Amino acid sequence: MRTTTENAQLALLLEVSGTPKPGNVDRHREYEDLRFEHFVTGAVCARDGLRLAAGGAEVGESFRRAVAGMSQQSGGNTQFGALLVVTPLVRASAAHELTPEGSRNIVAETTVEDAEKFYKAFEYVDVAVDDPPEGMEPLDVRRGADAVATIRERGITLENVMERSADRDGVAAEWVDGFPRTFGAAQTILDGTGPVTDRAAEAYLDLLADEPDTFVVTKHGQETAEEVRRRAVAVRDGEEDVEAFADELVERGINPGTTADIVAGALFVALERGLEV
Amino acid sequence: MRTTTENAQLALLLEVSGTPKPGNVDRHREYEDLRFEHFVTGAVCARDGLRLAAGGAEVGESFRRAVAGMSQQSGGNTQFGALLVVTPLVRASAAHELTPEGSRNIVAETTVEDAEKFYKAFEYVDVAVDDPPEGMEPLDVRRGADAVATIRERGITLENVMERSADRDGVAAEWVDGFPRTFGAAQTILDGTGPVTDRAAEAYLDLLADEPDTFVVTKHGQETAEEVRRRAVAVRDGEEDVEAFADELVERGINPGTTADIVAGALFVALERGLEV
Repeated sequence: MRTTTENAQLALLLEVSGTPKPGNVDRHREYEDLRFEHFVTGAVCARDGLRLAAGGAEVGESFRRAVAGMSQQSGGNTQFGALLVVTPLVRASAAHELTPEGSRNIVAETTVEDAEKFYKAFEYVDVAVDDPPEGMEPLDVRRGADAVATIRERGITLENVMERSADRDGVAAEWVDGFPRTFGAAQTILDGTGPVTDRAAEAYLDLLADEPDTFVVTKHGQETAEEVRRRAVAVRDGEEDVEAFADELVERGINPGTTADIVAGALFVALERGLEV
Repeated sequence: MRTTTENAQLALLLEVSGTPKPGNVDRHREYEDLRFEHFVTGAVCARDGLRLAAGGAEVGESFRRAVAGMSQQSGGNTQFGALLVVTPLVRASAAHELTPEGSRNIVAETTVEDAEKFYKAFEYVDVAVDDPPEGMEPLDVRRGADAVATIRERGITLENVMERSADRDGVAAEWVDGFPRTFGAAQTILDGTGPVTDRAAEAYLDLLADEPDTFVVTKHGQETAEEVRRRAVAVRDGEEDVEAFADELVERGINPGTTADIVAGALFVALERGLEV
């Protein structure tokens, strides 16, 4: 029997091994400065943080440690978002509540300290973020220690942080809603047949076709994100070739990272629920 | 800084990620029942055994635990040989002696109990082995508990086991000779440039061109092993296309496993000596 920590690490590795995952690094496609080997190394070194969460430690500190470990490679940000999806789910599994309701409880229990640790995690890698909405400038993660001071003054928990970002960040939306897309994709993977990495790639395409990827919105704007979504529908409907679509997105530097993050979470849930590899 | 355990796990993952590695499972090629995802899972679950060795535990028990973990996937034998190369090197690193001389010391210190644990490791997975030479039938690993009784009676250490196999098993030959090909390939990888997985694939091809792979000898005979070696030379000399060669070997089910095992060891040594990923 694999442990929860092993399943968490395995989820990160299977996620990047699934192909084709149009626009993202996978087994067959990589960017010159962000390669498959960087994701593998990130998954190896994130393990200690994941183990903390599996042992029942706070989500914020577990996440910070996982990101600190993940950053021990030269590719930069490989799995910040994936770890942000997976860590609370690992914590929910440690509490024997790996369900939408159980993950909602874990999120509800987060504290101001968890929020501080979350902000600290941004110090290890360069994460692409959008300008904050009006009125939230003091909480901009790019303000570092200043933002942390504001968090303390206002008593903002990690749940509060996610609530404020949920409408423009697909990972934050999962946090506040009980991870609906993550649990949905996990079921798709469990119901599938054949190689797990193929099922992960199919789950990715389904998610991409369903909603515009918020990471693409942040980096390339709403219009591009909507184009990517429409074309994922076309691929799913057999009207467009998936390999050509994947090549084109890499060429244009469009990587739907949020969608990949959710697949990592879905793989973790599926593995914990007995997915055989 | 990555830990020794992390480097050991990473070595297994980078080994299988290197492509093309003619005949073996890699990022671009797999067998229907032995897939990339099985190797990834094997590397995730072997970690506890590797951690034992990194903490200074006996080589035999560390290896047994690593193999028991590795077998937690449905592909069968993924990294038995790779772990057999890597484990004593991890133990040598734990003793601050990751050198040919240091690894020779670790091998020389092995006991009868280490030999017993080595034999036990065969119970977890189906490993392809040859008939033993004349006079060594009582030590045939396929005899299981009977062979272990013989080991105890005759006071055979794990070093002795390897000595008796060194002329027909490339991994055993590494054990008794201070891992010359492993350390040599590590230096090649360290001296190289570009993606680490590409360097691993190049080191693999060099090793394949230098000596017939003993795993191929066991499964397909000396003649086939020599053919593979000659053609690896042709690939290296630019006279044959590496991708076509890789496709053909997979098609024929010829996998030079011993050569891949040595690359895993070489990656571990290179990572411990500061290889950046």
